[in-house]
Amino acid sequence: MKFIATTGAALCALALAACQSATAPAIPAPPPGNTPSPADVIAASKPEEWRRLDPENTLYMDFPNGRVVIELAPEFAPNHVANIKALTREGFFVNGAVTRVQDNFVTQWASAQDPERKPKVGVEKLNAEFSLPRNAPIPFDVLPDPDTFADEVGFSNGFFVARDKDKVWLAHCYGMVGAGRDVDVNSGGGTELYTIISQSPRALDRQLSVVGKVVQGMEIMSAFPRGTGDAGFYKTPAEYKRYADMKIAADVPEAERTNLETMRTDSASFNTLVNARRWRKDDFYTNPIGRINLCNITVPVREVQK
Amino acid sequence: MKFIATTGAALCALALAACQSATAPAIPAPPPGNTPSPADVIAASKPEEWRRLDPENTLYMDFPNGRVVIELAPEFAPNHVANIKALTREGFFVNGAVTRVQDNFVTQWASAQDPERKPKVGVEKLNAEFSLPRNAPIPFDVLPDPDTFADEVGFSNGFFVARDKDKVWLAHCYGMVGAGRDVDVNSGGGTELYTIISQSPRALDRQLSVVGKVVQGMEIMSAFPRGTGDAGFYKTPAEYKRYADMKIAADVPEAERTNLETMRTDSASFNTLVNARRWRKDDFYTNPIGRINLCNITVPVREVQK
Repeated sequence: MKFIATTGAALCALALAACQSATAPAIPAPPPGNTPSPADVIAASKPEEWRRLDPENTLYMDFPNGRVVIELAPEFAPNHVANIKALTREGFFVNGAVTRVQDNFVTQWASAQDPERKPKVGVEKLNAEFSLPRNAPIPFDVLPDPDTFADEVGFSNGFFVARDKDKVWLAHCYGMVGAGRDVDVNSGGGTELYTIISQSPRALDRQLSVVGKVVQGMEIMSAFPRGTGDAGFYKTPAEYKRYADMKIAADVPEAERTNLETMRTDSASFNTLVNARRWRKDDFYTNPIGRINLCNITVPVREVQK
Repeated sequence: MKFIATTGAALCALALAACQSATAPAIPAPPPGNTPSPADVIAASKPEEWRRLDPENTLYMDFPNGRVVIELAPEFAPNHVANIKALTREGFFVNGAVTRVQDNFVTQWASAQDPERKPKVGVEKLNAEFSLPRNAPIPFDVLPDPDTFADEVGFSNGFFVARDKDKVWLAHCYGMVGAGRDVDVNSGGGTELYTIISQSPRALDRQLSVVGKVVQGMEIMSAFPRGTGDAGFYKTPAEYKRYADMKIAADVPEAERTNLETMRTDSASFNTLVNARRWRKDDFYTNPIGRINLCNITVPVREVQK
């Protein structure tokens, strides 16, 4: 992917609210002719453009209608990820439940076998992990398109990310997973988790610790009946949507694992895919837009043989 | 709402992709202290800041679990709106069905009593109504926040809108309703309709005729099981989700109507509400973002006595 030279920082600094960071590359030119579909790009990709999920950082939740797979983000929320794994391994989520589904917002789940249940190995509260310093040693593949909320947005190892001059953080896009908390910013920990099922509420960015992303099963997480209680909580435990347990993939016998790989967001094929969606042109889409929003991008995931 | 003076057009023109229109007002300053909640703003609003829905341009769809109410937008798609009303009045949608639910995209519905059913009074195909000329005599309350897809975004009589130097159009935000079409841009007409249930796919803007907005019942439209066929279509009619009929509110006996009013998007209270969400600060949200995305804004709707 080639980028056209960017414009000067001084101009952008003057335009303030109307400007993205001047360090962002310009939007690439449209590909000639009709754009390839994601399936076309995937078919033409090379094996080394894919990354196998790490079983130690992959969670399964098995619902009656299928498995939800979550990839954890230890680079961004190391303490939360370690705690969620400790909670999972101690059986905290056995016979767990979705307790809240607020329309156009989140699906939230917890242990819920017993509302008073306390963790034994894991802990209830951790200090916030809302962001990293801007210079943290993590990849950041910049998306050149303008964003409402942040100076720059893009991808870091497949996760949606944003940054400003001081900080870098995981962005609350559709399917991202975070740790619920109380009013105290240091009251989250992972005993209650949520995922975004709607127009992405990016105003949550840097207000909650984001811990990962649903990479399979959003069609399950997004389609539960909405709760009719305050903030979408189900009014009674009878309404809860049960999952058998949350499990770390590494702890599941190999024959029962869902082996997934995800397209590398620093690969040429991923850039081709994003630009094809940005300039989508085919028999149906005849008016290419030339822009794409971070949260409208789907990072390809596919099942692989063991 | 006061606006800070905007920056110069020449600078923005140079910054290209990184710039919003220079005619947009600057983002208003944060309110002092904690921001009011939507309920607070609604409670403090004046009666004249609300607008009663016009029963002639309001549709009902009654599902087993509740009523969905759609406000039509005749200013933007006059021919489609007239045709949808003709189809409704001839009974085209009696015993209709949701035929498609594609996760992170749309819920789509049709007549579906008989796949071969043809309209008798209404028609199957109309010329596209994707946009209006920029100078069309419609209100446009500009939102000053940056947008990924358009020079300017905002509201027109409660509907999400966007514009560039040539055109103005209804934006594909969560809950907006459009007319499905085939490959031919002039093949829509309203016999199949869809609403957005996800991260808003604004790349559809100006590619389909948008005809209105769900103002009540999105918690029904967004929670159907996702279809497992191609593009989220249900594979068999047995999977369809049925609604009794689609009705124009004016044709329903007054005692059976759902009487709604919506906050005027050109009112002081609406501006207060938007700015309070943009700078949301309270016991939980301690880090005000200072930006808001068009599609994250909920225009208040409430039921009124007859």
